[in-house]
Amino acid sequence: MSERTISHESLYSFVKQVLLKCDVPEDAAHYVADNLVLSNLRGIDSHGVGRVKRYVGGIKDGYIVPDARPKVIRENSVMANVDADNGVGQFAGVYGMDLAIDKARMQGIGLVTVSNSNHYGFAGYYAMRALEYDFIGISLTNSEPLVVPTFGKDAILGTNPISIATPGSRNRPWVMDLATSVVPRGKLEVYERLGERIPHGWATDETGRSTEDPSRVLNNVLHSYGGGILPLGGEGELHGGHKGYGLSMM
Amino acid sequence: MSERTISHESLYSFVKQVLLKCDVPEDAAHYVADNLVLSNLRGIDSHGVGRVKRYVGGIKDGYIVPDARPKVIRENSVMANVDADNGVGQFAGVYGMDLAIDKARMQGIGLVTVSNSNHYGFAGYYAMRALEYDFIGISLTNSEPLVVPTFGKDAILGTNPISIATPGSRNRPWVMDLATSVVPRGKLEVYERLGERIPHGWATDETGRSTEDPSRVLNNVLHSYGGGILPLGGEGELHGGHKGYGLSMM
Repeated sequence: MSERTISHESLYSFVKQVLLKCDVPEDAAHYVADNLVLSNLRGIDSHGVGRVKRYVGGIKDGYIVPDARPKVIRENSVMANVDADNGVGQFAGVYGMDLAIDKARMQGIGLVTVSNSNHYGFAGYYAMRALEYDFIGISLTNSEPLVVPTFGKDAILGTNPISIATPGSRNRPWVMDLATSVVPRGKLEVYERLGERIPHGWATDETGRSTEDPSRVLNNVLHSYGGGILPLGGEGELHGGHKGYGLSMM
Repeated sequence: MSERTISHESLYSFVKQVLLKCDVPEDAAHYVADNLVLSNLRGIDSHGVGRVKRYVGGIKDGYIVPDARPKVIRENSVMANVDADNGVGQFAGVYGMDLAIDKARMQGIGLVTVSNSNHYGFAGYYAMRALEYDFIGISLTNSEPLVVPTFGKDAILGTNPISIATPGSRNRPWVMDLATSVVPRGKLEVYERLGERIPHGWATDETGRSTEDPSRVLNNVLHSYGGGILPLGGEGELHGGHKGYGLSMM
């Protein structure tokens, strides 16, 4: 495979063009492209522009509505529920976070939930939006079932990330963004591409035993054959696997 | 060591009497005794009545003020900062959570911070107070330095717990309460008492290497000799130790 260096500006324009061609409106296309390219720039390639193909596929298959507009379905001065109407996740995510920021500017706190949305890229993107206003930003989301609960056999939990961004005064902001599993799915895909075995304690197979074969795990979770990625803390309770399970439930 | 079974009612009365003798007022003594005994009843002996000796010691040494009353130092409709005035932690914890609940009853959300407080027992006690009002309760706190950051040598983080209680509709509430380290300190104390070695991956010694000697770790953290308990996810990044580190920072 030959390598080529592409500037992030060109990459951004390319991704945005692809989305515009799929009937994603200008503003939504901007947030998707910005989110994906920024993830690559931050070194998280599992959440970078590699995702565009899936988004385009989702639009073609009809489960992502390209021109959906998020709407507020319930609201008070500090909280809101937003329905993303099956649109692109990044647009709904920004809409939700900006609404939370607006409320926080008035009341000190804002809490917004988003339903009927799609993959929203990396969670830190939304948490970091709060930094501009010197606020602490928090973003949580769920994902499809990839993770087996402690002592469980089948993947029923998502890699459900937690992200928090805290402004710095003299120092730079502190930004945390982590999957509540030992590793996210993207890490298994990286090992699969490199033809390497994964470390013991990352995942279990369809028999419920620890496995070092990334392809087997990825195929199993894709077809719900059983097994999956382990929660942060690993297998059983000895090293706190039940804690990752609990954090995922959050 | 001979064993005796004591009813939790007697244990509660005994603990409360001890505190009253130390000039802790009736209401504060109730919350301390209730919190500690409930922890034993829930099977978390590391946070149970075994702590009374430390609290009494703290009062005698003057760093816990027995009759301190928490006071609000800043407040708006959804948030407040409470100064515990170096009083017993359980009293300030309940005061803070109940104030947050009051605000949530009016506004939908309440967020209260407590400063200048002491050990408040198990975090879930406060989170669970919200269940009575059908609210989700969250309680976080810090602790003295016991945990080494990922790739670090000295313990500078606390075992900083996260607790969340979510009401059930048909089912019982879901309550999570966990230290963001692989294990809390109490777990090492249990292994020490039993004369057992701790599993690899729980703690490091003063040289920065993994150790299986619980006494060495406990002595090291007590005297700041270096090393300590590892964050959830264990040593290094391979199994997500940096995630436990991040969660502890939360």
